[in-house]
Parts: sequence; C-alpha cells; structure tokens
Amino acid sequence: MIKISVDAMGGDYGPEVTIAGAAVAQKYLPNISFLFYGTDEAVRPVLKNYPYLAAASRFYSTESYTRMDEKPSQALRNGRGKSSMWHAIEAVKNGEADTCISAGNTGALMAMSYFCLRMMAEAERPGIAGIWPTLRSESIVLDIGATIGASAGQLVDLAVMGAGMFRALYNVKKPTVGLLNVGVEEIKGLDEIKKAGTMLREVQLEGLEYKGFVEGSDIGKGTVDVVVTEGFSGNIALKTAEGTARQMAEILNTAMRSSIFSYFGYFLSRNAFRKIKSKMDLDKANGGVLLGLNGVVIKSHGSANANGFASAIRVGYEMVNNRLLEKISTDLRLFHAGKAAFFDDKNESVIDAEVI
Amino acid sequence: MIKISVDAMGGDYGPEVTIAGAAVAQKYLPNISFLFYGTDEAVRPVLKNYPYLAAASRFYSTESYTRMDEKPSQALRNGRGKSSMWHAIEAVKNGEADTCISAGNTGALMAMSYFCLRMMAEAERPGIAGIWPTLRSESIVLDIGATIGASAGQLVDLAVMGAGMFRALYNVKKPTVGLLNVGVEEIKGLDEIKKAGTMLREVQLEGLEYKGFVEGSDIGKGTVDVVVTEGFSGNIALKTAEGTARQMAEILNTAMRSSIFSYFGYFLSRNAFRKIKSKMDLDKANGGVLLGLNGVVIKSHGSANANGFASAIRVGYEMVNNRLLEKISTDLRLFHAGKAAFFDDKNESVIDAEVI
Repeated sequence: MIKISVDAMGGDYGPEVTIAGAAVAQKYLPNISFLFYGTDEAVRPVLKNYPYLAAASRFYSTESYTRMDEKPSQALRNGRGKSSMWHAIEAVKNGEADTCISAGNTGALMAMSYFCLRMMAEAERPGIAGIWPTLRSESIVLDIGATIGASAGQLVDLAVMGAGMFRALYNVKKPTVGLLNVGVEEIKGLDEIKKAGTMLREVQLEGLEYKGFVEGSDIGKGTVDVVVTEGFSGNIALKTAEGTARQMAEILNTAMRSSIFSYFGYFLSRNAFRKIKSKMDLDKANGGVLLGLNGVVIKSHGSANANGFASAIRVGYEMVNNRLLEKISTDLRLFHAGKAAFFDDKNESVIDAEVI
Repeated sequence: MIKISVDAMGGDYGPEVTIAGAAVAQKYLPNISFLFYGTDEAVRPVLKNYPYLAAASRFYSTESYTRMDEKPSQALRNGRGKSSMWHAIEAVKNGEADTCISAGNTGALMAMSYFCLRMMAEAERPGIAGIWPTLRSESIVLDIGATIGASAGQLVDLAVMGAGMFRALYNVKKPTVGLLNVGVEEIKGLDEIKKAGTMLREVQLEGLEYKGFVEGSDIGKGTVDVVVTEGFSGNIALKTAEGTARQMAEILNTAMRSSIFSYFGYFLSRNAFRKIKSKMDLDKANGGVLLGLNGVVIKSHGSANANGFASAIRVGYEMVNNRLLEKISTDLRLFHAGKAAFFDDKNESVIDAEVI
C-alpha cells in the first residue's frame, strides 16, 4: 500500500480540487491510500461526496493552513506544528506517509520540507525538478527554483538526482543528461558548469549518460532526458517558456476569431487543437519534485484542476513505487566516494530564505 | 544621408540575402546609402542584378570573409584587416559608415567590434540587445549573450542603454524598465540585482521609468518595454522562448495535417495562421544590437531572409537617425556623475573570450 499525505487546503481551489484529484488518482493507481490534512469545515463537506475515497483514507483535522501569499519564513513561523501543509510533510517524516503532495505556496512548502525533513546525508542542497513537455516526449529540468547558483559538485548532485527521478518515472535505464549553458566553447565565467561537465564525463556513472552542454532551445526539443542548471536560470527558463506558450495560444485564439472563415476553419480543426492542447498540457506534466531531502515532497501547480492534481499524485506514487530515495542516495554515495578528488568541498551554507 | 556598411558575406546565405535585403531597405528608408564588403566573385554577380541599389552604394572587395563556425579568437586572428566583417566594422570606426550590419558569426562580430571600436568611455562592458515580440507589441531584452554575470552598476548601464535604444526605435519618451528576477522577495544570492533595483529607484533617471522586478513570463506579456538581465540568463531566456515557439509551431503543423477535417479547417483559417506568423515573426523583430561600443553594430539572424535582413538594417538606420550613441553616452554620464556613491567600482576585466 502506498500512503499519500495530502495538504488538502493548498492551491487556488483547496479541497474542491485536492480531494477530487485524489479520487481521480484512486481510480487508476492500485494500492493507494490517502491521509488528508485540513480544517474540518473545509474538508469534511467535500470528502463526504466521495464515499469510495473516504473509505480508503483518513482525515486529520488541522488548526490552520498556509496561505498562498505567506512568505516562507512567515509560513514556517505561523504553520509549524499547526498548518495542514506542515502536518502533511510531518507525516512523511514520521513514516505515516510515503510521500506528500501540496498545491500550496512553493516557498513555504520548500522551507517547511527543508526544516522538517532535512537534507539527505549525501546531498548538499535541495533542488526542485520539473517535468517539461517536449517534442520528443517529456524531460526533467532541475533546479527550477530551489536555490540560486551552484558549485560544480552541486550541479553533479542535481544531475544524479534528476536522472534517478527520470528512471523512476519513465523506466529508462540510463537517461541522457545535459548541462544548460550558452552555446559556445570559448566562454569564460562558467567554470562551475565546465567543471561539472568534466566530472560527469570522467566519472561515468551507471545511472546516466552525460551528453554535454545543451542550450535553451534544446529543452523544448527534448534533446536530452534531464536538463541540469542552477535555480536562477532554471526558473527564468521555465517562466519564459510558460510565457511564450501562453503568448502563442492567445495570438492563435485571437487570430481564429478574426473572420468567419477562420472561425469555421477552427471549428473543423477543433480535434487538432485538442491534440495540441493535450501535447502542451501542464496538467499532464504537473508535479514539481523537491529533491535532496529525506522524503519525497511533490509540489502541484496552484492552479491545477483535479486531473492536474491527480498527475502530481501519480508522480509521487511512481517515485515511491520505484524507491527513488534509495536509488538517489546510493548513486550520490557512489559518486561522492569514487570521485572525492574532483570536489572542491565548498560547504556553502544551505538555503532557508533562499527558498522560492 | 545615412551610410550603412554591410558585411555582405555574413549569414547562412551571404550576398543572396544581404544584397537583396539592402535593396528592400532602400525602398522604404529615405536618404540611405550602402558600403558592401565581400569577395569579388561572391558579391559582384549579385549586385549587378540590383542596378538601382548599385548606384547608391560602393563595393569594396575584401581578401576573405569570416566563417560561421570560426571561434571568436580565431576569427579575430584570421580576419583582422582582411575579412569582410572586419572591414565593415572598421568603416564605422573611420567614420565612413554610420552603422554596420552583419548576419555573420555572433561571437566573431562581438570580438571584432569590441577590438576595433572599443568601449564607450561611459560604459564598462558591452551588451547585446534583442527585440522581442510580445503580446503588447515589442520589448527590448538585454544582455542576450555578450557577457556572463553583471555587477549592479553594469545592470544599470544595461538599463540605461536599453532604454536609450527603445526611445530611438519606438519614439517613446520614458520607456518602462524591469530587472529580470525569480519572483520572490525573500531570496538571497541576488544582491547585485537588488542593488541595481535600489540604484534605479533612487536615481530617478530622466529617460526611463523603473518598474521593479519582472519574471520570465513577463517578457512575452510585454509587461515592460525593456527587460534587463546579465548575458547568461538572457541567452537562456531567448533560446528557451525560441525553442518553445518552434515546438508549438511544429505540434500545430502536425495536428493540422492529422485529418482531412483539420486540413480543410487549416485551409479556411490560413489567413489567421498568416497573422500568427506575422505576430511572432522573427524577421520583423530581427536585429540584435551591440551596445556600449563607440559605434552601432547590428547583428542579423544568420538564417534571416531578405526581409529579415532589411529589418536589421532598419534597426541600425533608426539608431543612427535618432542619435542613439549620443543619447546613451549622455545618460550614462548623468547617471555615473550623479550617483557615483552607489557604485562599487569593480573594474572586472572586460570580455574578449567571454564573447558568445
């Protein structure tokens, strides 16, 4: 049985979506049970509409919940030991749940998870991994915003964690990995990226195939399975891609309504448009994964609908089912042990407020 | 008369496109003349097909040209005093031309321009500004890849140069400016961006209106006229957006051909599709501008067609016509004089190999 703790209050719609999403996930994921955390008055009325789900889950009433606009430090101060988000994470720590899903405030989720679960012994800093729809299928991009900047060793850690996640989700033995860079050999100032490339090439890890540098345009192409970068440029890339996709959709929409011909054409082509929508669908690729902690925590988009939230649950489920944490910690240990010589051992202070 | 020096050999198609592009520009830009640089055998046969253009231009035969795959340092070594790219830039230095346009190798163009024209006294480092189609209209994004990393003062320099360029191109008195960041207040590690924000807020420059931080998703929305960032994340953002746009176009294309209905629908909607294409058209927004040098150098996309190359020419033309360099150097001088106290005066060594 895989036990999923759900911050039922998180996201733009709260229980309406999180409970409904759990009901969707329950239909297609075998051996799943849920622990819901939230306030009595918000969760109970919704949960009673899903008797089959209610039978396979427990509800824990919490004093409060973390608001979408709370700053990470605020959320931690206000929510520690009290909020639905905190309790959902703590369930993982206590072994009551195998993984935690929240559509709440990312910064707060990161801060609470970091504070409650702590780093794996083998990893130096946490990262957030995102699933990115590509022309080929889907890729994993990390870090999309947990921490700013990264040493070579931290980039390699991200590569190892991302590859572990790709193996767990897509059942591929040796995912391809690229380091995000600007496309030129003769460039100064990116010593850490170059050094990380050297490490990845020299070390020849079992669980990944290092393919060298990739550029921003390679992400959407799906040139590699796992794209590794530090949190600032990763976040810029993600947001810019989302912005461009929205921009194109809006232009398309306006253009299609610009004449009776195009509108009629749109009507005839509507299946094609549905296909496009499904290919670029954030719902299907929903679920940012907090990596590097002693527990699997999944961040769903705040605006996800029930299907989107179910996808985030699926991501957590697959991670647990495929024993992601064990795999990652073994890989990291192998890497660190074998190639200690490569490391500069900068023990930069780990985030807290650096959290997004 | 505005004199444009053209590296006729640059780009994927050479004179076929550069000469044809100049002929297009000549039709709609008054008082324009050209200086073409290239090898005899490549340029003469094309130029003689455009007698009206030939009459308004001079052709200077050069020994060699810079190849698309030469590294910046190589290109400089091989091309200095010899290649069409070098001579086109030198014409600006010698006052024979007002601006130089090349569709050649970006890294080589940057290195040669930097070496030949040198920095403006007021600017510390060069930047490349790109014109970005947005939902609102067009924005300028810089630096999209000249140098990696930037101090607060260098970010403000970019803001001033970008705003000057926006004023010159779009005839707006006080363009809005945003600093690209990841969207959270409570973040460590981006001290230079925060400091640049403080400077821009305190200094109250005449020629721009500082609007605060923007995120990747704001670029496509057109939230601000000028988006400022250092060259690494700027390049990642640009390439990621290009990749996403191409990805969506490809999915659309495939989907539209997936059934006879959708294909017929596509046929009916083809004007709408043309509109979309024109809105996202890189041709119309073609022309990266090298800023911070003692001369205006325009980089056209290597794959631009004649209309695209003509757009790049127009960008250079407008810059000269609106006395961009004077405006920028005045603004920079005002900024530096008035607020010297804000500056940390890190005189980091200026690029050469950092060039993309």
